Amino acid sequence: VLVGNIADIERALVGVDRSDVDIEIVEATEVITMDDHPVQAVRRKKNNSINVALNQIREGKAEAFISAGSSGAVMTASLMILGRVKGIDRPAIASYLPTIGKRTLVLDLGAVTDPKPSNIVQFALMGQVYSERVLGIENPTVALLSNGEEPSKGNQFVQTVHPLLARTPGLNFIGNVEGRDVPMGTADIVVTDGFTGNVVLKTAEGVVTMLTTILREEFTSTIPRKLAALVLRPGIKNLRNKLDYAEFGGAPLLGVNGAVVVAHGRSTSRAIETAVRVAVRSIEHDLSGGIADRIVRAHDVIEEAESQSVEAAP
Amino acid sequence: VLVGNIADIERALVGVDRSDVDIEIVEATEVITMDDHPVQAVRRKKNNSINVALNQIREGKAEAFISAGSSGAVMTASLMILGRVKGIDRPAIASYLPTIGKRTLVLDLGAVTDPKPSNIVQFALMGQVYSERVLGIENPTVALLSNGEEPSKGNQFVQTVHPLLARTPGLNFIGNVEGRDVPMGTADIVVTDGFTGNVVLKTAEGVVTMLTTILREEFTSTIPRKLAALVLRPGIKNLRNKLDYAEFGGAPLLGVNGAVVVAHGRSTSRAIETAVRVAVRSIEHDLSGGIADRIVRAHDVIEEAESQSVEAAP
Repeated sequence: VLVGNIADIERALVGVDRSDVDIEIVEATEVITMDDHPVQAVRRKKNNSINVALNQIREGKAEAFISAGSSGAVMTASLMILGRVKGIDRPAIASYLPTIGKRTLVLDLGAVTDPKPSNIVQFALMGQVYSERVLGIENPTVALLSNGEEPSKGNQFVQTVHPLLARTPGLNFIGNVEGRDVPMGTADIVVTDGFTGNVVLKTAEGVVTMLTTILREEFTSTIPRKLAALVLRPGIKNLRNKLDYAEFGGAPLLGVNGAVVVAHGRSTSRAIETAVRVAVRSIEHDLSGGIADRIVRAHDVIEEAESQSVEAAP
Repeated sequence: VLVGNIADIERALVGVDRSDVDIEIVEATEVITMDDHPVQAVRRKKNNSINVALNQIREGKAEAFISAGSSGAVMTASLMILGRVKGIDRPAIASYLPTIGKRTLVLDLGAVTDPKPSNIVQFALMGQVYSERVLGIENPTVALLSNGEEPSKGNQFVQTVHPLLARTPGLNFIGNVEGRDVPMGTADIVVTDGFTGNVVLKTAEGVVTMLTTILREEFTSTIPRKLAALVLRPGIKNLRNKLDYAEFGGAPLLGVNGAVVVAHGRSTSRAIETAVRVAVRSIEHDLSGGIADRIVRAHDVIEEAESQSVEAAP
C-alpha cells in the first residue's frame, strides 16, 4: 500500500513493472515537511501521509509502516494512533552501526533525551527481543555505554542504571562499554539515553565522511595515484558498502503497537527493500508480543527502577 | 627536569646526546600504576612521580608539567598541589579532535561527568582563552554539543546551558552543533559534559581504527591491490598523520594554577615534543592569568548559572 499524493505516486511508478505485484494506492491530502514542528503537524494536518498510513494498520488493512519522512512525526503519530506495547513507557529508536565484523544495535538514538533508569531497562529488553527475533542472534550481549568499563565508571545516571541491568532476568548483560567499543563490535546491543545515542551515531557518521573525504583527496592528487586507485576501486567499494548506513534499511521504532521502521530521508531503493524485510520479520516473529512477554518477566526490576531517581546536578 | 626512578631514567637516556641540553633528574621513589585508584594513590603514595613533579612547580623549580601517566591521578594531584585558577570550580580536560581542514578543541573529556550549568560556561571560557593564547586563533567560535542544531534541541541540561552561553560576554557562541559537526570542524571549540565528551572522543577513535582495519584488509587482499597500495602509500601516510591523535601532543588540564598537559600513555617522542611546545606556549602567554581575567568579566552570567539547577529525571 503506497500512501501519499496520488499524482506523485503515479508519476514515481511510471515504467515500473507492476504485473507481479498488487500495489494499492491510498490518498493522503496533506504532507508533513521537515520544516513542520513534528508534534504540532501530526495534530493539525490530520490527513497527512503518516497518519493515513498508520490508520491503515489500525483498521487492519496493513500490518507494518515504513516511512522516510520526519522521524519525530512518525514517532508522535505512531504513539497517538498505534499506542504503546503494554509495559513500555517510552518507545525508542534503534539502529545498527557498522563495526569490524558484525553490527551493533544502538538504542535509544534520540526518541528519549532525558530517560528514567526504568526506560533504559526497557530499552535493553526491547533491543534484545529485536536482535533475537528480527536478526536471529541467539542470546545477544547487551552493554551500557559509559566513559569507562568498570561498574564504578559513568555519570550518576549510568551508575544508577548499571546495577539494574545486572539484575534484569534473562538479559545477557556484559557491563559497561566505552565509545570505541561501538565500532569495534564488542556487544550486540548498546543501550544509552537518546541524547548520547544521537551524538554517538552522528559522530560516527561524521568521522566516516571526514575519512572518505580525505582519502578521495589523497587518491586523486596525482596521475599515478589515480591509476593505482583504479585498481583498488573494488576494495574501496567494499569499504563503502560496509559503512553505508543506507544499506542497513532504517531504524525500527521499538515499543509501539505495530511494526514501524524509520528510513533515512535519502534512502536508496536498496535501503527501502531492507526496511521492508525488517518490517516483515518484525511481524512474522511477533516483535511486539515478544517485547510484552519480556517486560512482564522483568516486572520486579522495572518496578524497582521506577522507584530510583537520579539526583540532578545541584 | 625528569622526575621518576633514577635508574629507569638513566637507562632511557643512554645514547642521548645531552651536550646541548641541561637535563636535571629528580628522584621519585613511588609510582602510580594504571591499576591504582587515582585519588587514593595520590594520597597514599606521597612520593609518587606525579606529586614530586608538581611540587617542583610549587617550589618554583619548574613552570609546567607533562605526564603520560594516569590522567585521573594527574588531575587529583594537580588540584591538591597547584589548586584551581580563581573563579574556576572544576578544571576540565581538553583535546583536539581531527577534522577536515582544521582541528576542533573539545572539552570536557572526562574530568567532570556530572557538571553544573555554570561549569559549562567556565569550560567555554577556558577553551576560548586556550585557543586564543596557545593556538593563536583569533575570536574562536564556541558551540554546544547537542542532538540538533535548533536552540530548542537537547536534553534538559543542554537546554538550560544554551541561553547562558548565548549571554556570556565576549564569547563567540554559534549555538548548538551535532555529533557530525565535530569531525567536520564546524566550530573551533565544542563544549559538553565530561561523560558525553569522553564517549565522543572514544567513538571517533574507534571509527578511525575500524576504517583503517577494513582498508588494510581490502588493500592487501590480492597482489595487484598490494602493488597499487604501494603507489598510494604516501597518501595513506598523509591520512594517518592527519588522524593520529598522538601528533596532537596531549590534552591540557585547564583551570589549574599552572600548565599541566596530559599526554597519551602510548605517546611517541613527537607527541611529547608537541606537548612540550603546548606547555611552553601556555606559560609564555599566561594561560592561567587569561582564564582568571575572562572569568571575572563573565561574573554575572556565571552567578546566574549557579542559581540554575537542572531537574533530574523523575
